[in-house]
Order: sequence, then C-alpha cells, then structure tokens
Amino acid sequence: MHTVRVKLDKRSYDIVIGRNIIPSLGGYIKRLDIGESAYIITNPLVKSKCSQALTRELKKSGLKFKIRIIPDTEKSKSIATLSSVINDLAKFDKKSRTFIIALGGGVVGDLSGLVASMYKRGIPYIQIPTTLLAQVDSAIGGKTAVDLREGKNLIGSIYQPRLVFSDVKLLESLEPRQLRAGLAEIIKYGLIKDSRLFVYLERECKNILKLEPRALEHVVNCSSRIKADIVSRDEREAKGLRTVLNFGHTTAHALEAVTGFNKYNHGEAVALGMLVALDISRSLGLINSGLNKRAQRLIKAAGLPLKIDRIPLKKIMDVFYRDKKFIGAKARVVLITGLARPKVAQDVPSGIIEEAIRNRIKR
Amino acid sequence: MHTVRVKLDKRSYDIVIGRNIIPSLGGYIKRLDIGESAYIITNPLVKSKCSQALTRELKKSGLKFKIRIIPDTEKSKSIATLSSVINDLAKFDKKSRTFIIALGGGVVGDLSGLVASMYKRGIPYIQIPTTLLAQVDSAIGGKTAVDLREGKNLIGSIYQPRLVFSDVKLLESLEPRQLRAGLAEIIKYGLIKDSRLFVYLERECKNILKLEPRALEHVVNCSSRIKADIVSRDEREAKGLRTVLNFGHTTAHALEAVTGFNKYNHGEAVALGMLVALDISRSLGLINSGLNKRAQRLIKAAGLPLKIDRIPLKKIMDVFYRDKKFIGAKARVVLITGLARPKVAQDVPSGIIEEAIRNRIKR
Repeated sequence: MHTVRVKLDKRSYDIVIGRNIIPSLGGYIKRLDIGESAYIITNPLVKSKCSQALTRELKKSGLKFKIRIIPDTEKSKSIATLSSVINDLAKFDKKSRTFIIALGGGVVGDLSGLVASMYKRGIPYIQIPTTLLAQVDSAIGGKTAVDLREGKNLIGSIYQPRLVFSDVKLLESLEPRQLRAGLAEIIKYGLIKDSRLFVYLERECKNILKLEPRALEHVVNCSSRIKADIVSRDEREAKGLRTVLNFGHTTAHALEAVTGFNKYNHGEAVALGMLVALDISRSLGLINSGLNKRAQRLIKAAGLPLKIDRIPLKKIMDVFYRDKKFIGAKARVVLITGLARPKVAQDVPSGIIEEAIRNRIKR
Repeated sequence: MHTVRVKLDKRSYDIVIGRNIIPSLGGYIKRLDIGESAYIITNPLVKSKCSQALTRELKKSGLKFKIRIIPDTEKSKSIATLSSVINDLAKFDKKSRTFIIALGGGVVGDLSGLVASMYKRGIPYIQIPTTLLAQVDSAIGGKTAVDLREGKNLIGSIYQPRLVFSDVKLLESLEPRQLRAGLAEIIKYGLIKDSRLFVYLERECKNILKLEPRALEHVVNCSSRIKADIVSRDEREAKGLRTVLNFGHTTAHALEAVTGFNKYNHGEAVALGMLVALDISRSLGLINSGLNKRAQRLIKAAGLPLKIDRIPLKKIMDVFYRDKKFIGAKARVVLITGLARPKVAQDVPSGIIEEAIRNRIKR
C-alpha cells in the first residue's frame, strides 16, 4: 500500500494505492469527516463488478448511500446527464451531510467531479478509479468536465477530490483494450518525466498486460507520484508545468475528433500522438533515432497502434489547428529533448507537424 | 468616482462606482487584457434602457460583442437556461478571446457568473449591476448560482468577476419598489457594520428614494467597501466572517420560500427578517429598545414592510428549519449586540425565534 500526497495547501489530499484496499475505505472517510451519506455515481458494468465490496464497507462503517448509474459512454458527459444527476442528488441529500463517490473510469470521474463542484457551491468527493487510465491520470488533479456539441470538455472546473482510492484489484475485470489504453499514459510519464519508469516498462510490459499485481501497483504508484507532483506545482496550468502532460495529446485530440470519438479510445489516440511528437522531436534533431526506436518498440509491446488508419491528412490538420490550446495559428506542441526531458515548443512550423502526421498514416 | 478593491491575491479586482462611467469601461477592459469579444448577458428591460451606452463604448474600443437576452424572472436561474446560454456562447466564441459581461440585476449576475465559471473551466467576466440590490450586494463576492426545484441557489460556485462596474446612472430607470429592496441591504450594512452609514441613512433616506446622485453614490460606495472587506477576508464563508452578511436572511429565505417567491422581493423579505432578528436581539437583552425602534423607523422610512402578511406560523417555521444553513436542528442566527456589532448566535432557543416571528405577523 502506498500513499501519494497532492499538495495544495488546505485542498491537499491523498492518493492511496494498493491491492484489495476497499475494506479500509471507511476509516479514511471517518478521518476526513466529510459526511454520513455517500452518493455513488457509477456505470452498469462497474456496478455489477465492483460495487459490492464498496457498499459492504460503507454499511460496515455506518454510512448511508445511494447508487446512481449513468451509461458507460462519452454521451453521459452531457449537460442533460449533469442536470439529471444533480436533481437526483438534491432529492437524496436531506438531513445528513452528503459526499460523492465516483466509482468508475474517466466519464464517471469527470461528471462526478463537476456535480460535486456545482452542488451547493461544492461538496466533498472521492475518486475510486476503476480503469488503469483513470488511476494513473484522470482521477488525479481535479479536472472535471462535460462536453458540448462544439467540443469535448468545454464545460468544467478545477475542483479537487478529498481522496483518490486506487485499488488495482478493480483492474482485474478490465478489458485488455482498456488496460492498454492506460499503459499509453504510463509510457507518456516515462517519456516525459521518469527514465527509470520507462526502463521498468520495457522490462515488465508483459507482466502488466498479464495483470501481475506487483507490477500494476508499481506503475500506478510511479504515475500517481508524477501526476501529483505536477498538479501540486501547477494546479491550473498557469505556469506551463502541467502543459507537459499534454505530450502526444494535441494529435490525439485531433484523431479522436476526426473519427467521431469511436474509432480510437483515448489511450490509443495518445499512443499515436506520442509517436507523432517523437517523430517531430527527431526531425528537429532534439532526440536521436535510437530513443525514437526504443519508444516505438515499447508502444508496440504494449499492444498499442503504430499507424493511423487511412484518414485524409487535411481533415486531421483542420481539427489540429482548432484545438483549444491554440490562440490564432500559434501552435504549442510538447516535445522531448531526451528521455524524461520534455520541452514545450511554441512555434513548430506546421510543415514539420504535417509531415510527421502524414508519415504515420497507413498507406 | 470611487474605486474599491476586493483583495484576493491573484484574483483581486476593482469595484468602480460613479455616475455615467460606462464611457470609461473600454479602458478598464484593455488594461485587464481579458479579451477581444464580449458576450453580454442581459434581460429585455435592461437591454432597452441600458445597453446602448455599453455597446457604443465597446464599439469605440474596437471590441466585438453579442447580446444574449434572458427573461427577467427567477425562472431564468435554471439548468435549462444555463445550458442554452452556454451552447450559444460556444457558438459565438471562435477565434478571439471571449469574456462575459453581466448587465442586469441578481438573476443576470448569478447566472452569468456560473456560465463564466463553467465554460472552458473558467473565462473572465465583468459585472455591470443595474439594480441597487446588485450594486451593493449580489454583484460583489463571486457567488454564482442557479436554482433547483429542491431549493434556490443549490447549484453554483464561488467565482470572482474581474471587475464590478457600478454606474448609479443605471439606477435612474429603476422601479421604486426595486430601489427600496436595495435600501434594505444597505440598512443591513449600517446595522451590522457601519454606524455612520446608519446615521447617514436616517438623514438621507428620502434623497436616496428621490435618486439624488450624490446620496446614491455615497451609499453604494460605503456598502461596496463593507462587502469587499468581508469577502476579502472570508471569501468562502469558512471563517464565519461572511456569515454576518446573513443578518435577517434566514427568516427572509423562509418568507420567500413559503410565499413561492412572488409575494415579497428579496429586499422586502430581508427587511422583515431584520425586524425579526432585531426583536430576537432585544428579547435576549442584547440591544435596548431604543435601537430597535430607530431601526424600525428607518425601515419604515425606506418604504419597506413592517409586518408579515397572514401566513401560518407553522409553515414559516417548517421552512426555517430546513434552511441550508442548518445541520440538524441547530439554529444559527445572526443577531446584533449594538449598532454595528454583529453576533453569530449558534443555539437560539426555537421558542424565542417563533415568538419573534409570530409578533411580526399581521393579526
């Protein structure tokens, strides 16, 4: 069992990582003194697979609870679902103090955080991420959101949870494709921040895919440390420190948008985006081809895609330049100048970006 | 022209108070560097009476703008309106940086602030309050909100504006009843925080009701200073300092709720609530009857109600104890122990509260 602290003065909180740790949750809730009633937001699959241990623990701790199920799809990140959940929560929230538990992946976490931030100008919430992607990334840092037709995550807040509880046992029922998606973000941490993690992944990738508990716990712990450290120093992405977490993400967002968010999952898109960012770093002479090849080999070993399916380059570029990280035509791209050496490049010539993406498209 | 600073580190901002100051707004927007496109949220009446000066100034300053009209009713503080406005804003918000201008009273201000806090995890907004109540109270302090069927302001955030621009010229078209509502909150500031303001009101109440510009500017300035000072020291009502602003408000909320929010406006309900709080302070021996009578005389001179219309006491008490400021049956009531000497009482016997309310109900 490991504990990682996100340090944000009075809003600091712990990330607890371990295997089969749900039976100790009640003690944490009591010490935090966040309330007597838990409003659990989850999706149907997670409810059937993971909610029993949780509700048993809540009952044992004398806490009231209600489970609210939302569909397991990005479509749940809508104002309509937000509104429906908040109305339901208001009916549940009577005499005792209510807090929220987000039990699920990124969709549940993003929506639950927003509900918690808006209801009564903010009530406490706990993240219990059930996907590898959520455990290493989306459950940490307080980014909450729902989508608009005009774009993903256009509505949201930065609102920190009071606790993140990452039980790697919950990952055992995960589909392999979702596990690989999480691995993409872990590879990202290795590339931008932690060469030892990168080397560990090169060696242990197979064991992670086989759900070996010690390996899972190790990479979730390392990743949580990196994310917590960056969020602690730059919560609102004001100092540019948090920006490095976007390594691979500008291309990823473009690929997701252009394919209507149903071809690649986020991790797969990030893998392709990292390959593009690595190729750009290589073309600009920032890294040698040896490192680029090692990264490609690891992404391949993780079972992630190496090539973009046939999509017209122009379509990708159009979305690329509309990304909300851009003001006007100024392109901000995160690159690396070596292993664990990220660099936010402000004015990468669009020709180099286009070429790198073109070379990644299947012929 | 007066400037009052709300001091919240990096989120500090100015409240600018004066007569006919809209023609100087462009300069402020430029110095704040908050964007090139203004999305103005307002209501039909305010648009027809006040928007021309504003749009003229924006044009002169080379700023783009769009006006979005919402109905002038508490019903506009809904998730439905929130969603509709955000979708419209997302369509407007293209190339250049967009900020929001809330041009109106409390409804427009509360909704606009919430839109600004949620869109893209927060964009800048400016409050241009057009009612006396908004200028002295709701436009300052960053409380944003919409309502749920379960209760008023159940959804919201604390999100500070970048500027509050209080032009008392905008008050000239105000209905007398709305002017008196604003006066109720100003009397509250006098009672809880500023004996000189109280004495000034005793002398100048008539001139304020006659819209005498100097008197208006003076009371808006004094009130803004008090509110800014409290918000600066206790933004999130965590230290109990901001709590004193709730003087008269617990009873006011109960009266508003019990009458379906259409009998008393907020200021009238606050006037009745203050009379109840004064009576409780008197019954507990915290103030003498002389002060209580002076306060009653001032409330009467302001044209505010002195008696609660025939409402069954039980109905009021039921809502009273359901107020979100209560946990269980513990009643927190703000009282005074003298002029400008507020006291947050934690355990006032419910019998004394009931008696004070009963005595204010018309027979």
